[in-house]
Formats: sequence, C-alpha cells, structure tokens
Amino acid sequence: MSSDVFNSCNLPINDQACISLGHGSGGKLSSNLINEFFLPYLGNEILNELEDASVVTLNQDNIAVSIDSFVVNPIFFPGGNIGSLSVHGTINDLAVRGAKPLFIAASFIMEEGFLLEDLTKIIQAMQLACRQNNVKLITADTKVVNKGDCDKIFITTSGIGLVTANDIPSVSKAKVNNNILVSGDIGRHGMAIMATREEFELESTIESDSASLYSLINLILASDIQVNCLRDITRGGLATVLNEIAMASGIGIVIDESQIPIQTNVAALGEILGIDPLYIACEGRFVAVVDEIRAQDLLAIMHSHPLGTNAAIIGKVVDDPDNNVIAKTIIGGSRLVDTLLFDELPRIC
Amino acid sequence: MSSDVFNSCNLPINDQACISLGHGSGGKLSSNLINEFFLPYLGNEILNELEDASVVTLNQDNIAVSIDSFVVNPIFFPGGNIGSLSVHGTINDLAVRGAKPLFIAASFIMEEGFLLEDLTKIIQAMQLACRQNNVKLITADTKVVNKGDCDKIFITTSGIGLVTANDIPSVSKAKVNNNILVSGDIGRHGMAIMATREEFELESTIESDSASLYSLINLILASDIQVNCLRDITRGGLATVLNEIAMASGIGIVIDESQIPIQTNVAALGEILGIDPLYIACEGRFVAVVDEIRAQDLLAIMHSHPLGTNAAIIGKVVDDPDNNVIAKTIIGGSRLVDTLLFDELPRIC
Repeated sequence: MSSDVFNSCNLPINDQACISLGHGSGGKLSSNLINEFFLPYLGNEILNELEDASVVTLNQDNIAVSIDSFVVNPIFFPGGNIGSLSVHGTINDLAVRGAKPLFIAASFIMEEGFLLEDLTKIIQAMQLACRQNNVKLITADTKVVNKGDCDKIFITTSGIGLVTANDIPSVSKAKVNNNILVSGDIGRHGMAIMATREEFELESTIESDSASLYSLINLILASDIQVNCLRDITRGGLATVLNEIAMASGIGIVIDESQIPIQTNVAALGEILGIDPLYIACEGRFVAVVDEIRAQDLLAIMHSHPLGTNAAIIGKVVDDPDNNVIAKTIIGGSRLVDTLLFDELPRIC
Repeated sequence: MSSDVFNSCNLPINDQACISLGHGSGGKLSSNLINEFFLPYLGNEILNELEDASVVTLNQDNIAVSIDSFVVNPIFFPGGNIGSLSVHGTINDLAVRGAKPLFIAASFIMEEGFLLEDLTKIIQAMQLACRQNNVKLITADTKVVNKGDCDKIFITTSGIGLVTANDIPSVSKAKVNNNILVSGDIGRHGMAIMATREEFELESTIESDSASLYSLINLILASDIQVNCLRDITRGGLATVLNEIAMASGIGIVIDESQIPIQTNVAALGEILGIDPLYIACEGRFVAVVDEIRAQDLLAIMHSHPLGTNAAIIGKVVDDPDNNVIAKTIIGGSRLVDTLLFDELPRIC
C-alpha cells in the first residue's frame, strides 16, 4: 500500500495516478496534492499563504475567510458530533487569524435514507455552537445524493470574521528564540474518534476536545502580548502544525516531549494502537508562538481560561536552514519529528 | 415511492423518517426540509430570507455571501464540468444580489481512487472560470474519503461579493403589473445532464447553459433601470423560481407559454422523457422582474449581450392572495404551474 500511495502522487499523471487516502491525511501527501495540483492553477498571493483562514481587504474592512468540509466517521462521537465540530472548526480557523467570527455559511450533502432524527441532533448542535459564540448562520445549501453515493452526511462550513488586529498572527512569523506554547492536552479528538470505530472494538473514556477557541484567543488578543503565530491543531496533529510553522517561517523548532500535556488514557490508547499522539488530531487546541520574554505572561492568560488549564510552554524556535522539528525525548535523547508521508486514519474530521 | 417520500417528510420524527431524493430536488420537499428542520434551529432574519446569497453589513462594507455544494453526475458533461459549474453557480448567486463577485472559497471531497487526471481537468476549468470573471480563490480545503464513501468528487464553493447597489434586488420585491423577463432559453443544463446519463442511452447535441451571468447582470445594474428581483434559474427550473418569487413577494404571476424561449432539441427531449422543461434546471439563465414601463429597455440591454440574445418578456405580476403561478398555454387554455413536490432527477447540479 505504501508504495502505491507514493506512486500515485509522484508519477507523471497517467491513468494509474489517483487520489489516495493519504492525500487527505494532512501529511506530506496532502501537501504534495496542494502544491502539485491546486496551486499551479488556482494559486495566488493569498491562497499560496496556506493559512487556516485567508485575510482579504474589501472597500474598508479586513475580513478573514475559511472553508472546511467535515466528513468525520462516526458522525456522533464522545464530546460532540459532526454539527458542533463543523462550527467549532470554522470559528477556530477564523480566531487564529485574529478575527472575530461573525458569519457562517453551511452546505449539507446528505445520503438518501439518512435519518431526520440524526439530522435534527446535528442541527441542534450547530445551533448551540453558533449561539454560544454569537455567530450567525447566514446562508445554507442542501443536496441529497442517491443511497451509496455518500456516507450519511458531509457538512461544509465557510466562515467570515472581521479582523481588527493590526498585526495578524501568521504561520510565517515565528522568530528565533520565540517560545512555543500549546493551549492544552493533545490528541483527544482523534483518539476519541478512533476508539469509537467499530474495527477497533475498544472501550474508552476519551472525549473529543472539540471546542470553540474564540473566547480564549480573544483574551490573548485583547492583552498587550504580541503573538506571532497562532494555529489550531487539526489533521496531522501537533507535529504537522509545528512543521508547517517551521517551513513557513524558515526556522527550526525544538520541543521537550516531557512538557507536552497528554491525558493518560490518550497516551495509553496511543501505545495500544501504536500511534504517536504528536500526530493525532485535536479540534480544540492551538499552538502559539511568542517572544520568550512574554511566554510566562501568555501562559498565565491561558491558565486563567477553562480551555487553557493544561497549557504549557513546550519548546522554542531555533535557527535551522533545514526547518527541522526536533523533540528532546523523555529518556534524554532527541528525535526528528517529521511530517508524516500519510497516516492511515481517514475521516477524523 | 411517492407516498413514502411524502411520509418521510410529514410524519413526526421516528426511525422511519429519513432523507429522500426529493428533499434535494429544489421542490416542495426541499422547502419542507428547510422550513421544518433547518430554520427552527438555525433561522435568523438573514437566513430566513432564503435568498441566493445573503447580504450582511460588516463595519463599513456590505457583502453578499453564498454557499453551494455541487454533486453533479456525471462530473463531465457537454458544456462544462463540475469545476466550471461550481464557479459559475457561485458567481451567479452573488450577481443576482447586485454584488460584484470577488472571492471564492472551495472545498473538495474526493473518493479514494479518483483520477488525478480528472482532478486536473476540473481544477483547470475552475481556473479559467475564475480568471474570466476576475474572481480569486482565496482559501480551500481537501478531504479524501474511503472508496465507496462518496461518488468521485463533490465540490462546495462559497462566494463573497461586494454590494454597491443601493436598492438590492430581492425575491420579495416583485410588485403588481411588473413584467417578468427570462434572460435566455431554458432547460439546457438539466437536459444536457440527463442526456449523458447512462440509463437513458440517448444521443443528444444539447450543451449545458452553464455560464457566469455577472457581465450581463452588471450591464443591467449599471443602467438606470431599477430591477426589483433577479434570481438565477437552477434546481427546480423556471417554474420553481417563479413560485419562489410569488410566495416571497406575496403576489401572483401569469406567464405566456408561447413567449418562453426553449431550444427545439430541449423541447423534443422533454417530450421523449415526459418532463416539462419549465421544471428543468439551468445554470446560466435568470429571471428579472421590472416595472412594466422599463421592460422593453431591459430587454434591449439583455439582447445586446451574448448571454441574453434569446431573452424574452414572458409574463407579468398580478394581484393574487394565493400566490399562484399560472401559464397561458399555447393552445389557448391556462394551467397552474405549481412547485413540484419532488422530481426524480437527483444530482443535476
């Protein structure tokens, strides 16, 4: 499988070259797909930045715009469902660009035979998430496809936020000696999804961390601390976000594994499944990069908020022309935390 | 089938109540789904207007926002593909609200095994459609699902346009004695899709009318003619748009069938398949409602543009508390042009 996947992405286009699950993993294959197929045709100075949300100027206002499709399987999971996830994910993409989330557009692709009772639960979860965050759903679309042409329901949400920050956090603004912070324990969303998948038949108490990060991020942006990068941790996990920051900012990152907050049950399930939690998706956690002299102040703000109680300083930015992310391991060594070529866990979000 | 579909929408929610193909048809079942499931939870003064794009005010600027998922089958058809269709559809939704289309966000859900060669053609078509209309794709997402979890590729596009018009055309602004115009011959998109479906095994020369309407609409908006309603004709066809206008404006509409432009091959295929072209989707046509004294001027502007050469005045707005749409037939009678409960043609767009 591994070499097929590799070939499908790197061969010249021919009849054999096709989309693989790895292309959706958030790893290197996803990145290749974007760089080799999307950007050559659709790229421009805004899209090419590959931010969680793009910031554009209208006549007067600066807005942030995001879009994400949610195809999570199962659609109901401990800690949320595809509806709450779609609203949280969109709010988070806007918030990390320093934008106040205002409006959401949502499109629903549903399979013939999908239960209206389940649809209702999903819509109610979206309603709650919108209300809690003072966000309005302003336009929507529904499509129905024949039985077997999609799996239950896919939701695509596009968010619009107003940018008021003068200096917008960006994946490309990390500077040498900046500190790296994570807002809470990692890997819960992905592990919660995996634990509910039938093929694993696991009993687990892990709940998804799916949450809106806006109130916490707003607290940070309202302070006098200049945060250089903010990025929410989704597909590909903490490891992927750190690599994206290293690449975009042209720096290296060194993290201390012993400082990374991970729930015991998440670490234990990771051991059982043989999966490194650094690569597991979150849906309510972010990475912040800040000048080292303000790192403790930033940590104090995070700790003051319910979503940041487990926040920690986990490493720092270093000068490295190879843009590597290196982890100091708990047993005293060090290892390269590379972006995965692909992972085998589709439909995590 | 018909009564099952009906039951699935009107029964109290129980285990039998499920999404049917009719819920995606653009007809009455679609409307019921929106009114009974979406609006009670997610409704607000903006969403409730059910416009093609919603207009909201930021700090300073008025923007129009649209979202649509495209699940058309087949993905390549005479006159376009799912990529060009997704850009045209989004531009048209913005244009009919008097907005200048500026930005598009796009999300791609792809099936494992989907050919990269096909993806490339689709992306190239999006590139061309964006360039021709001076629209930028500013943010995107890609998701991959397992083989069999979706059919090839679904594209969701959200559009953002800047509204400069003072008096924004709206589905609710038709007034008694206004004239109804259609911008060109109807039904080509839906008939082109149906003719290519394997189950019909038809040979046809019909090409989709998929096109960006912005340049034609811009010509109209730049004139001194105040257009009350503009609505592009998509799922459910001309009949559905006219019923939406009648309902939202609280008026009735009388159209003259002999004045409705329809290509001979579209009418002929309609006869063969037993489908009324009034209910067939277009993707490059719109309805305009205007004061009767300016109808000829508006028609002249339409005729001056390549996309409006077949434009025609097809009827007028009348006082009718029942908000009926009535067609004077070619043989001299009249018939009620109701919204269909559902049609059996999924995945037309």
